[in-house]
Amino acid sequence: MKIKINFERLKNEIIELSQIGKDPRGGISRPSFSKPDLKAREWFKDKISIAGLSLRQDGAGNIFGRLEGEGKTIMAGSHLDSVINGGIFDGPAGVLSALESLRAIKENSLKLNKPLEVAAFTDEEGNLVGDFLGVRAFTGSLRREVLENGLTQFGKPLKDILQDTEFSIDSIMQADKQRPDIDAFLELHIEQGQVLETEEKSIGIVDCIAGKNYWVCSFSGRASHAGTTPIELRQDAFLGLADFALKATQYVATQHYGSKVTIGKAHIFPGAFSIVSGRADFSLDFRSTSEESLQAMEIFFLSLAEDISSTRGLKFRYKSIDKTKPVTTPPRLTNLLQEICEKEDYSHMILPSGAGHDAQIMASITDSAMIFIPCTDGISHSPEENIKWEDLEIGANLLLQSLIKLAS
Amino acid sequence: MKIKINFERLKNEIIELSQIGKDPRGGISRPSFSKPDLKAREWFKDKISIAGLSLRQDGAGNIFGRLEGEGKTIMAGSHLDSVINGGIFDGPAGVLSALESLRAIKENSLKLNKPLEVAAFTDEEGNLVGDFLGVRAFTGSLRREVLENGLTQFGKPLKDILQDTEFSIDSIMQADKQRPDIDAFLELHIEQGQVLETEEKSIGIVDCIAGKNYWVCSFSGRASHAGTTPIELRQDAFLGLADFALKATQYVATQHYGSKVTIGKAHIFPGAFSIVSGRADFSLDFRSTSEESLQAMEIFFLSLAEDISSTRGLKFRYKSIDKTKPVTTPPRLTNLLQEICEKEDYSHMILPSGAGHDAQIMASITDSAMIFIPCTDGISHSPEENIKWEDLEIGANLLLQSLIKLAS
Repeated sequence: MKIKINFERLKNEIIELSQIGKDPRGGISRPSFSKPDLKAREWFKDKISIAGLSLRQDGAGNIFGRLEGEGKTIMAGSHLDSVINGGIFDGPAGVLSALESLRAIKENSLKLNKPLEVAAFTDEEGNLVGDFLGVRAFTGSLRREVLENGLTQFGKPLKDILQDTEFSIDSIMQADKQRPDIDAFLELHIEQGQVLETEEKSIGIVDCIAGKNYWVCSFSGRASHAGTTPIELRQDAFLGLADFALKATQYVATQHYGSKVTIGKAHIFPGAFSIVSGRADFSLDFRSTSEESLQAMEIFFLSLAEDISSTRGLKFRYKSIDKTKPVTTPPRLTNLLQEICEKEDYSHMILPSGAGHDAQIMASITDSAMIFIPCTDGISHSPEENIKWEDLEIGANLLLQSLIKLAS
Repeated sequence: MKIKINFERLKNEIIELSQIGKDPRGGISRPSFSKPDLKAREWFKDKISIAGLSLRQDGAGNIFGRLEGEGKTIMAGSHLDSVINGGIFDGPAGVLSALESLRAIKENSLKLNKPLEVAAFTDEEGNLVGDFLGVRAFTGSLRREVLENGLTQFGKPLKDILQDTEFSIDSIMQADKQRPDIDAFLELHIEQGQVLETEEKSIGIVDCIAGKNYWVCSFSGRASHAGTTPIELRQDAFLGLADFALKATQYVATQHYGSKVTIGKAHIFPGAFSIVSGRADFSLDFRSTSEESLQAMEIFFLSLAEDISSTRGLKFRYKSIDKTKPVTTPPRLTNLLQEICEKEDYSHMILPSGAGHDAQIMASITDSAMIFIPCTDGISHSPEENIKWEDLEIGANLLLQSLIKLAS
């Protein structure tokens, strides 16, 4: 018997959830452990219970709904939290498609061997103390000092934010169950890019998730008067940053096609009209699906910063604040997804993921794969984030079919 | 009879005044109409009265001390306000040297024909609504709308700051006396650059003050995800700014030697690690002693911004918020200063001023000239601003001799 998800129910649930944490500026703001997030958690737990799945929550606030079976668990999920002023699909599309798949299996009384679980991981977006808090806790790759010392983007320490919840730093650290019983993890997610839309495909099968480096960097020079300091005598920190930004981008674009480098934050000091800048602080985000490219970029950036410093009379400092490795999807999962797409005639393609996802962290403890669906104009992390509903229907049915195959 | 200034008295007064508005971080913070500035004004008015000069204050808070005479007035002065966290010589050196000169003339009962005045102009540093508020009011070149609409750097409108003082927007606008009776204006000031120090000269005779343009500019592009947006599809506003900064600097350094361009402020939006910047706002300060160079720079910058916008898929907007013309010192004043230096064997040279000064604005109503003295390492607008006292002694005596000649 071939079963399908109940698409109207899935669509209605996504719309229902999008009402929790509406931002007056548009879109939603639902960072983990905020009031709207706590409300969304209760809403989701009710859905699990009503579906007749067994509900479990760990000390990091990760929520699981389980359909019992024998042997190793097949898990699917994503996250319910959002960036500030974000969209309604990034995360929920994956969680609710997984819930709907389990519900469809249960309602159709399909007898599978293995247990199935839907998972919603805490703070994938890193509004608190860095990306992937929940899944990192779950997979045992979270360092306690980050929880204790990290300042959240709301200007408060994590423990103050946890005060109004049932969680604590201790409980988060205890979430690590090192579950050796998980056989595979699947995550459906919007692409957050424009490849699928451009190629007119409904499905992207992710063969690799990029590794990512976050650095905080600074050039320091000498603040001086804009009217009296000849250009050739300046030690202008901002010009050092400008030089670095252009050359770093040029290098990655020409030498590591498909890899990325981004300077998304910059602050220059003292920051006045008529003062040559004495210091320029900036963020450096670089990513690649190739470990070799990441290493080459790191070497190049350090040597570039040194060259610029010596030419322009500056000093360069940097600190690495986050680092994830590229993850390759096991062929047994990409092959499975491809076979179903071919059989069901879902338009699809293989592509890498430039963004990080819960699936990337899950790869450290189990076989992990991702299904992408297109999003309009590639826009995400924005109130304008949107999808074509028919793509979600195809994606959710692909997820359902994959879970059935894996659990059989 | 040849008279000299009382150097110990001048030095003591500079040190006395430096105690008013001390900043806990070092240096002084004495923006116009702040509490320390109001205290400094009272201190200065007392000095004028004690010296037996007639005291006058106009509606913009400009303070004058007058030694009566017949015919047109010879005026000398500068300003008492400072930038936040600034030095103790920028401004006060000129005001107190002028006061000391008038005092020396009076104490020595020197009979001169013309009246002499010392002037202290309000807010030369532009902490309120743009540079030169006081001298612009005095010379009739201040626009009322700037006073009414401009937001001060303290985040308040000017009228709120004036509330605690005896001044108002009306009184400032009435300060314009268009005084046709001023025959010449002299300003002694620290160089705020390194030319005199490098050339080992005690005196710089300014033959030209650079004209200055202040623009606020913005590139806008499209904010997008740093992990999923291929480099070649980005519309990265910050990279547009970086490109502009390097090419603008390169152009001025190679095509307009001695002119300056500075980007001292930059803010990029939304300003997150993993978001390609959608907007980059920045300040553009460009200066030259040549009107032709200023015009050429303006044309080049606009065309450069257009090129960059079209190459990088950005939009460029700008607004001119201040513009002063280059001013050439009348030869009768540079010649006079040179003759005295040669006669007295003061080591000196002719040089342009890259910074703007009260003397530049005074040039619109009278013959105006400047005497520079060296400052250590060219540092100014900083707690580390310093001078060699013997240079100030020479400068103040040059000012005294010049005033005597001009008033005779």
